Amino acid sequence: MSTFGTHFRVTTFGESHCKGVGCIIDGCPPGLALTEDDIQPQLTRRRPGQSNLTTPVRASFRDEKDRVTILSGTEFGHTLGTPIGLTVPNQDQRPHDYTETDLFPRPSHADWTYLLKYGLKASSGGGRASARETIGRVAAGAVAEKFLKEAYGTEFIAFVSSVGKVAMPFIEEQSESGVPSDEFVEMLSTVTREQIDAEPTRCPDKEISKKMTQRIIDAKEANDSIGGTVTCVIRNVPTGLGEPCFDKLEAKLAHAMLSIPATKAFEIGSGFGGTQVPGHLHNDAWVQKTGRKGQKVLGTKTNFSGGIQGGISNGENIYFRIGFKSPATISQEQQTTSYGGVEGVLATRGRHDPCVVPRATPIVEAMAALVIMDAVMIQLARQGAASLLPPMPETPLRPAPFIMSVPGGQAIKVDEASKPKTE
Amino acid sequence: MSTFGTHFRVTTFGESHCKGVGCIIDGCPPGLALTEDDIQPQLTRRRPGQSNLTTPVRASFRDEKDRVTILSGTEFGHTLGTPIGLTVPNQDQRPHDYTETDLFPRPSHADWTYLLKYGLKASSGGGRASARETIGRVAAGAVAEKFLKEAYGTEFIAFVSSVGKVAMPFIEEQSESGVPSDEFVEMLSTVTREQIDAEPTRCPDKEISKKMTQRIIDAKEANDSIGGTVTCVIRNVPTGLGEPCFDKLEAKLAHAMLSIPATKAFEIGSGFGGTQVPGHLHNDAWVQKTGRKGQKVLGTKTNFSGGIQGGISNGENIYFRIGFKSPATISQEQQTTSYGGVEGVLATRGRHDPCVVPRATPIVEAMAALVIMDAVMIQLARQGAASLLPPMPETPLRPAPFIMSVPGGQAIKVDEASKPKTE
Amino acid sequence: MSTFGTHFRVTTFGESHCKGVGCIIDGCPPGLALTEDDIQPQLTRRRPGQSNLTTPVRASFRDEKDRVTILSGTEFGHTLGTPIGLTVPNQDQRPHDYTETDLFPRPSHADWTYLLKYGLKASSGGGRASARETIGRVAAGAVAEKFLKEAYGTEFIAFVSSVGKVAMPFIEEQSESGVPSDEFVEMLSTVTREQIDAEPTRCPDKEISKKMTQRIIDAKEANDSIGGTVTCVIRNVPTGLGEPCFDKLEAKLAHAMLSIPATKAFEIGSGFGGTQVPGHLHNDAWVQKTGRKGQKVLGTKTNFSGGIQGGISNGENIYFRIGFKSPATISQEQQTTSYGGVEGVLATRGRHDPCVVPRATPIVEAMAALVIMDAVMIQLARQGAASLLPPMPETPLRPAPFIMSVPGGQAIKVDEASKPKTE
Amino acid sequence: MSTFGTHFRVTTFGESHCKGVGCIIDGCPPGLALTEDDIQPQLTRRRPGQSNLTTPVRASFRDEKDRVTILSGTEFGHTLGTPIGLTVPNQDQRPHDYTETDLFPRPSHADWTYLLKYGLKASSGGGRASARETIGRVAAGAVAEKFLKEAYGTEFIAFVSSVGKVAMPFIEEQSESGVPSDEFVEMLSTVTREQIDAEPTRCPDKEISKKMTQRIIDAKEANDSIGGTVTCVIRNVPTGLGEPCFDKLEAKLAHAMLSIPATKAFEIGSGFGGTQVPGHLHNDAWVQKTGRKGQKVLGTKTNFSGGIQGGISNGENIYFRIGFKSPATISQEQQTTSYGGVEGVLATRGRHDPCVVPRATPIVEAMAALVIMDAVMIQLARQGAASLLPPMPETPLRPAPFIMSVPGGQAIKVDEASKPKTE
Repeated sequence: MSTFGTHFRVTTFGESHCKGVGCIIDGCPPGLALTEDDIQPQLTRRRPGQSNLTTPVRASFRDEKDRVTILSGTEFGHTLGTPIGLTVPNQDQRPHDYTETDLFPRPSHADWTYLLKYGLKASSGGGRASARETIGRVAAGAVAEKFLKEAYGTEFIAFVSSVGKVAMPFIEEQSESGVPSDEFVEMLSTVTREQIDAEPTRCPDKEISKKMTQRIIDAKEANDSIGGTVTCVIRNVPTGLGEPCFDKLEAKLAHAMLSIPATKAFEIGSGFGGTQVPGHLHNDAWVQKTGRKGQKVLGTKTNFSGGIQGGISNGENIYFRIGFKSPATISQEQQTTSYGGVEGVLATRGRHDPCVVPRATPIVEAMAALVIMDAVMIQLARQGAASLLPPMPETPLRPAPFIMSVPGGQAIKVDEASKPKTE
Repeated sequence: MSTFGTHFRVTTFGESHCKGVGCIIDGCPPGLALTEDDIQPQLTRRRPGQSNLTTPVRASFRDEKDRVTILSGTEFGHTLGTPIGLTVPNQDQRPHDYTETDLFPRPSHADWTYLLKYGLKASSGGGRASARETIGRVAAGAVAEKFLKEAYGTEFIAFVSSVGKVAMPFIEEQSESGVPSDEFVEMLSTVTREQIDAEPTRCPDKEISKKMTQRIIDAKEANDSIGGTVTCVIRNVPTGLGEPCFDKLEAKLAHAMLSIPATKAFEIGSGFGGTQVPGHLHNDAWVQKTGRKGQKVLGTKTNFSGGIQGGISNGENIYFRIGFKSPATISQEQQTTSYGGVEGVLATRGRHDPCVVPRATPIVEAMAALVIMDAVMIQLARQGAASLLPPMPETPLRPAPFIMSVPGGQAIKVDEASKPKTE
Repeated sequence: MSTFGTHFRVTTFGESHCKGVGCIIDGCPPGLALTEDDIQPQLTRRRPGQSNLTTPVRASFRDEKDRVTILSGTEFGHTLGTPIGLTVPNQDQRPHDYTETDLFPRPSHADWTYLLKYGLKASSGGGRASARETIGRVAAGAVAEKFLKEAYGTEFIAFVSSVGKVAMPFIEEQSESGVPSDEFVEMLSTVTREQIDAEPTRCPDKEISKKMTQRIIDAKEANDSIGGTVTCVIRNVPTGLGEPCFDKLEAKLAHAMLSIPATKAFEIGSGFGGTQVPGHLHNDAWVQKTGRKGQKVLGTKTNFSGGIQGGISNGENIYFRIGFKSPATISQEQQTTSYGGVEGVLATRGRHDPCVVPRATPIVEAMAALVIMDAVMIQLARQGAASLLPPMPETPLRPAPFIMSVPGGQAIKVDEASKPKTE
Repeated sequence: MSTFGTHFRVTTFGESHCKGVGCIIDGCPPGLALTEDDIQPQLTRRRPGQSNLTTPVRASFRDEKDRVTILSGTEFGHTLGTPIGLTVPNQDQRPHDYTETDLFPRPSHADWTYLLKYGLKASSGGGRASARETIGRVAAGAVAEKFLKEAYGTEFIAFVSSVGKVAMPFIEEQSESGVPSDEFVEMLSTVTREQIDAEPTRCPDKEISKKMTQRIIDAKEANDSIGGTVTCVIRNVPTGLGEPCFDKLEAKLAHAMLSIPATKAFEIGSGFGGTQVPGHLHNDAWVQKTGRKGQKVLGTKTNFSGGIQGGISNGENIYFRIGFKSPATISQEQQTTSYGGVEGVLATRGRHDPCVVPRATPIVEAMAALVIMDAVMIQLARQGAASLLPPMPETPLRPAPFIMSVPGGQAIKVDEASKPKTE
C-alpha cells in the first residue's frame, strides 16, 4: 500500500490532479536538526524541467515549483519524535475533462490496470503510477539521509550508468569478466554528488555523458523515449543491518527500488554477471582494515557481495544497479485497441520526459535511505535489548578467544592466543 | 524478520542444528482441501540428494527426509481458516563442537555478519542463512499454490535458465535485441513442471541441460562451485493484483526473490535488456483476446511489461529471472583472515552443493505463490467492499460508454456507441 | 505509533502548535461518494467552544475553526481508492516561549512522560497527548462511517452516560443486578444522534442531562474538573467480524478506545457487572429473528455478550462503555515538584475544559467506525477467497443438514429434517 | 489475526483437537539464558486440573500434561536471536464425531460466530476460542518475562480479586471513594506469586479466598458457572514505554487483555471509579523518590494514573483489572434454538471449569509481559537512534537548566539554579 517501513515509517499521498502531494514520516528519532532547507534540495533535483533532457515546465512556475512545507513534528528547527507531516502543492489541481482519447488505454501505461484494480477511471489514468507520487518518498528520504549522515556519516550516491546502449565502461567490462572491475569499485568509493550534478545526464563520466545527452536528444526529436540504468552506492554503512530471513537487506532494497515507477530490474554486487563466476573467484576474502574511527575491523579484499552477506550488511560499500524502461508516453501514433475492443490509433500530445533516469537518481537515493534507516532502528532495538542482559558464560556460542560485545557493531576483539593453527 | 505477507501470512522457524524447522500459515481461506500430500511434493523437489548434482545425503535417511506434518488448522482434509502449523524434523539436531576452523569467518558466508548482528556464534555460523530455512517457505508456498490453482487455475513454473556461462538461447538473444524473443514467450506459455523435472538440472532444454550438467560436474570435481539463473513464469494470473505505490506487484516479487539465500539479481519482463529499447518498440500494444472462460478481454500483443503495468497485474503471463551466485562453500583452500585479524588459510571439508539453482526452483515457485496469494486477498477485500456501494453516477470517473463493474477483474464492457473516432 | 488499521489504514499527524493536523487514509474502497461535507459535521461536533460546558474559543475564530480540506484521493466527489490526504490548519501555530512554569511537570499530564520518551520538551508538553491530535481520527472515522452506512446501514451512536457521580439510571441498576436492564437495551436500539445533540452534555436523558450540566458548571466554577463515561452502540453490524485470536473484535475496540486521551476503562456487554452473574443467567439464548432484509436469522434473546462472541460479531448490537478521567489541567494551585526535584506550587492559567466527555462522543464514534471498517475488509478478503473454492464434500465440517454458504454472513440455512431430537 | 507484537512478535497456532498447539517467537534478543525449564512453570500454572476448582483432567495424564519443547532458536541454553519455535502436543487429537447436539449452537459460545466467519463447523465449535489456544501465549510470555526480569527486574503479578460478588475489600472501597485505597496500593507493591499460589483461588487474601472457594464449589454443584476479576500489577517498569497516539501503553494492554477468552472489561489505575473524582483529587502530585539503583527520580505521590500518563509509562507500578464473564459451558439444560431455527433444549455433559479466573492469572501475566517487551524494544530503537545525534543546542526544547540525556530513561538532571520562583 502507501506505507513503507516499520520504525521509520513513511506514508505518502497524492496524484497529479489533486490539491497536493506529500507524506507523513512516523518514528523519526527526536532531536534531529531539520528544516525545509534540508529537504528541498533533493526535491529540486527530482523535479521536472531541470534541463532540456527532462519534462519542460512552464517558465513562470519554475522557481516556485515543488516547495515543501513541514506541517508538524518539528519545533525550533529540531524533530520532536512525533509524526512529521510534509506537503507540496500541485500546480494543476483540476481533474481532466473526458475526451475520446480516453477510450484507449495507453500502451504500457497503468490506465488499464488502474481501471481493473479500482473499477473507475481517474483523470490521470494510473493515478498513483505517476512520477509525481515520488515527491513524498524523496522528501522522507532526505530526512532519513540527514539522520544517517549525522549518526554514521553514511552517504547515498546514485548516478546514471547507462542510457539505451550508451553505457559506462564498467557495464561492458563486467558482462565479459562477470565481476566488477577495480576501477569501478574505486569510482564507487570516490564519486560525489557534485560530480554527478555537473552533468545534465547525471552520469559522472563526462565522455559517456555527452553520448548519453545525444541519445536522449535523438529520442526526443523522434518523439520517442529511451530507458537506462541507475547505479547507487551507499558508503559508511553500519554493520549488522538486515532482518533474515524475509527482510534481508538486499530484499528490502530490491523491494524499494522496484517500487519506483518504470523499474524492471535490480542487481546487487556482482549481480547477474557474478552468476557466471566460480566460487573460488567470487568469494570475498577477509582482510584486516582500518575503520572510520581508526579502529581495526574485518573487511573484504574484493566486494563482489556488494556489502551484504547472509542478508546482513558487513560494513563494505553497498552498491546496486536498477533498470528503468523507456517511458511509455511518446508522441508518436501507436496502433492499439480501445477498452471496447475496437482497434485504432492513439496519438498523445504534450511534453513528455524522453528519459527518466537523470531525474530518478534522487528517488533511488531516497528509497535507499529509507531502507537503511529502518534497518538501523530495528538493529538498534536488538542491540539495545541484548546489551541489558548479563554476559553469557563461555560456551561455543561465546568461545574464550572471542570477546563478543559488539556494541557499535564493529568491535569484536580476539585474544592474542587465538593465533590459528590452520595457517 | 521471519514473517511474510499481510493476509496470507507465513512465519518460519528453524535452522540447521535444532530439533526441527517449519512454519505457521495464518489467514489461509477456510474450506481448501489440504493434507500433507499436497505439500510434500515441493519439499521433496527442494531437498538435497536428489541427483549427483546436489548435496548428497546419507542413503539411509533419503526416503525419510523432510517429511512434513500438519499440526493444526485442518480437519477432515480441509482447512479451517485457523493457523496451519507445519513442521519437519531435523536429522542432525546437535549443535557443532567448536573447532579452530571457527576462528575464521568463511569468505562470502554469513558467519561474520550473523556474529555482528546477534553478537554470538551459533553452530551453523549464519544460522538462518542456511538453505534449510527455506523448508517453511516451500511448505507454505505449496498451500498458496494449491489455493490459486483451484480458484484461478494459476500455475507457477520455475526452471534453470543458465549455469555459469551455459545459458538457454533466449538470454543471449535478448542481450542483443533487448527484448524477449517470440520463441521464449511461446515457451513460457507451454513449458511444464514435468518437462523440467525430466532433467537433473531442471532446465527444460535438453541440449543445454547436458552442457549445464557437465558444467556442474566440472565445478564439483574442481572442489569449486558455480552460479546460475532461474526463470519463473506465472500463468493465469488474476488481474488487478499489486498495491501501489510501495507494494507494486513487481516490488513484492523482487522482495520475495531477493530474500532467497544466494540471490543477487532480479529482472521482470524485458528487464535490463529492455532499458536499451526505445519506447515505440517497447510499448505493448493492446489487442482483444479470449479469456480463460471464453470471454473477450483486453490483452497485450507483446509482453515486454512481464504481465505487470503500474505495479498491477494485467492478466498476461508474469515472468522474471533471478540470479544466484556460486555457493560460498567450496572445498578448496582459501587465503583469508581470522576474526582476530590474523591472516591464514581456511579449508572446509564435507559435501557441498556445487550449484544451487536446480534445487532453488521450488523455492522460487513458493515465494511467487506467496506473493500472488497475498495480493489476491487484499484485492478481494477492495473489490468486495466496492461492490457493496451504490453505483456511481455518470461522471468522467465513469463515462457513459463504460460499464464499470469489474467483478472478476476482467469484465469491463463498452457500449457500442463508443466506437472511437480516432481510428 | 500513529497508524491504525491494516486495510483501512489511518495515519495521523500534528500537535497543538504546528501548522496543522490531519491524516492519510489508505485503502479506502473506490467509488464512495465523498466530499468535505461528509467529514466536517463530526469535526464540528468535536471542536472546542460548542457550549459553555467546553473549552471556549475566541469568537472570531468560531465559524472558521477546524475546516477540513481533502488534498487527494477523490475526483468528482468520489473516492479513487488511492490515499486520501486530509488537513485542518492550526490557529495558533507558534511554539510557546519558555517560562518558569515549565520547570514543573504538570501533575497527571504527559509533560514528564513525553520528556522521558523523547528526551526533549516540546511547547505543548505532551505534544501528541493533546486532544487536538484526535482531529485526524475523527476525520478518518467519518469516512469509514459513511462507507459502513451505505454498505450495511451500520450506525454508530455514542452518548454521555455519566458525569462524576451523576449517572443514567442503567448504570446504577446494573451495578445491582449485574446485567443490563431491558430499558437500557431498548434505549440502545432507538437512541438517535439528534436526541443526543439536543443536550449540551450529549446525554439523551433530559433529567440527568440537567444534573450533569450543573455538575460540570460546579467544577468549572471551582476551577476544578470532573470525569465521566461515554456509552456507544453500533447497530446493524455485519456478522463474522473480528480476527481471533489476538485481534478479537472487542480487543480491537478496547485498543481503539483506550488510545483516546484521558480514557481509563472499557467494558463491553455486561462488562464488570456481568462477572457477578452465574452462567445460567448470563448465557444469551438463541432465538430466531428477522434480519434487516426480512430474512430469518439467528439472534440472541438477551444480549449480555454485547454483540460479540468468541471475538466475532454475531449481528446483535455491539455496545460498550468507556471511562474518562477528570481533565488534569485545572486552574487551582497544586503542590508538586519540579523536574529538578524541588518542591513547589504550580498554578496554570487559561481556559480549560472542565469535562471532556461531551466532546469525546464523536471521537468514540470515529474510533469504533475505524475498527469495524478494518474488520469488514479483512472478512471480505476471507469470504471472497473462500467463495472461489469448489464446494466442500459432506463431512462433519459440513454436515448434510447445513447449507454452508454464508455469503452475506447471515444466511446459513438448515434442512427441515434437522429438527433436533433433543427438544 | 494470530500474531501479536512488532519486534518481539508472537504467532500462535493450534486448537483443541489437532496434533498440537504452540507458537513462534520472532525477534527475541540474542544471549538470553533460556531452556524449557524457564517456560514450563507458567504453562503448569495455566493447565487444567490443578485443584478441584478447575477443569479436571484424567489422573494418568496429569504429570505429563502440557510439556513444552523448544524446537529452534536456542543453543547451549541461550537464545540465538532467531525465531524460537515452541510446541505442546495435544492429548486428544481426534476431531469429534458429529452428534445431534451439534445442531444447536451453544448459548454464549463461539460455535455460531465461527460458523459465520469461516463457513464451516470445526469439531471444537469455536476452534481458536478455546482456552487451549492460550498455551502459545503463556509460553511466549514466559520468555518475555524472563528477559524483562533480567534486564530491568520487572515483575508481573496477577491475582484473583473477585469471584461473583465475593470481592477483595479494595473493590468495594473504591466503588465508594472513587480511588484506590492506600492499603491496596501498598499490597500491589508487596504481593508475591508465592502468596497467590498458596491459595487454590489465586486470591492472596486468605479470608476472601475461602469465600471464593465456596462460591466456586456452589457453582460447580449447581452445574453452573461464575465469573470474576483478575488484578495485575507490573513493578519496576522502565519509563518511556508506549507509542502515541494509537499505541498508547494502556491501549496495548487493553487490546492484549481483551484478546483473552471470556474477558469483558478492563480498567487501569483508578478506572471507572476515578471518573467520579474531581481533578484536584485525582491528579497525582510529583515527588522526588529514590530509584532502584539509588538514584533520585521523579515519581508520583498517589498513583491514580496507574503508572501511565499520556500513554507512556512513568516508572510507577502499572496496575489494571480485567473482568471475566462466567463460563458459557454449563451442565444445565438450556432453552435455545438450533441453527435451523427450531426451538429446543440443549444439555451439554462433561467436565467443565466452573470459574476460569484462577487459571487465567498466568495468561494475564503473559499478555502483560508481551506488551511491555514489545514496547521496550521500540523505545530502545528510538533512544538508540537519538543517542547517535550531536547534542541539541539550547532552545526551549532543551532549556539551560535541563540536561536532557535520558539514557536509562530516568536520569534527567536539573541545574541547582533552577530553583523555581513559584514556590
